[in-house]
Amino acid sequence: MNETSDVVVLRLGHRPGRDDRMTTHVGLTARALGADRVIFPDNAGGSLETVEDITDRFGGPFEAELTDSPKAIIRNWEGRIVHLTMYGERVQDVEDDVRGAHRGGEPLLLVVGSEKVSFDVYEEADWNVGVTNQPHSEVAGLAVFLDRLFEGEELEGEWEDADRRVIPMETGKRVEPADDADDQ
Amino acid sequence: MNETSDVVVLRLGHRPGRDDRMTTHVGLTARALGADRVIFPDNAGGSLETVEDITDRFGGPFEAELTDSPKAIIRNWEGRIVHLTMYGERVQDVEDDVRGAHRGGEPLLLVVGSEKVSFDVYEEADWNVGVTNQPHSEVAGLAVFLDRLFEGEELEGEWEDADRRVIPMETGKRVEPADDADDQ
Repeated sequence: MNETSDVVVLRLGHRPGRDDRMTTHVGLTARALGADRVIFPDNAGGSLETVEDITDRFGGPFEAELTDSPKAIIRNWEGRIVHLTMYGERVQDVEDDVRGAHRGGEPLLLVVGSEKVSFDVYEEADWNVGVTNQPHSEVAGLAVFLDRLFEGEELEGEWEDADRRVIPMETGKRVEPADDADDQ
Repeated sequence: MNETSDVVVLRLGHRPGRDDRMTTHVGLTARALGADRVIFPDNAGGSLETVEDITDRFGGPFEAELTDSPKAIIRNWEGRIVHLTMYGERVQDVEDDVRGAHRGGEPLLLVVGSEKVSFDVYEEADWNVGVTNQPHSEVAGLAVFLDRLFEGEELEGEWEDADRRVIPMETGKRVEPADDADDQ
């Protein structure tokens, strides 16, 4: 998604142990589905390592980082903020507006909560968006939101500096060295 | 999705403790995004309880059940089988075929693995499908696949026998008793 403004995913809240895999999956989903960067709380170092390891092996560009103040990231964000929440407006009603802002040059911060999100996040967000108003999964909500934001173009992206590449197959598994792996 | 053939999600493999939340999120995502039923391995009773509890409170129809033989579910399935895997064909290349089969009356079994999936699953599947050929999250893959299968119609569904309903809001949270809660 290099030709457009940044899309950054901010994971809000992380309980070590209990949330490890969900937080990691938020980061890997952000990477696979076209975001440019993920920001984790600073107690999620294990998730950071996993995402960086996947990016090293399967390619980028994608950045992962930690923050000791997610609230400051939100407060100081220069662009638009989308907070994904089951209490928000319906994604099918607001996605055109969000996409228009992004394509118009606004960097997007996508805020993905875990447990209870404080009210100021709802207020700071330009859009509170529900991928359904049903309880399900922050990973699922993020995935559908990104696929709709990019209208499927994220599936066509090329990966740079990968050392391996999965070849789509009708049956079975095929992994090959990436063309550019020789240059490493 | 009552007017069409069933879409059933089969969670393959579950390691108690480690996979609890992922398995629960597979079930909740299946429910929220238009599948009719989820089948968990029989060691995932906690996930079954959570999904049933959410269905009791937020509505259905949606069924959750356990099986002691996921392989038998696959072997005996009358309809088509989609196995979601990062090694599969690209979702954007095969989704029309899958949708066509489903709309033509074929019940769909969507197989969602956790760790290593045995080769016979790849062989039994009518389609092995990758929502990207990148490592990310089985929950994200399932979510995008369902949203594409139903072309967003799953977001318009009505929920029956709910006792509460979340009202989409620009800011804040609003939960109301469901209209049909009086009948309970």
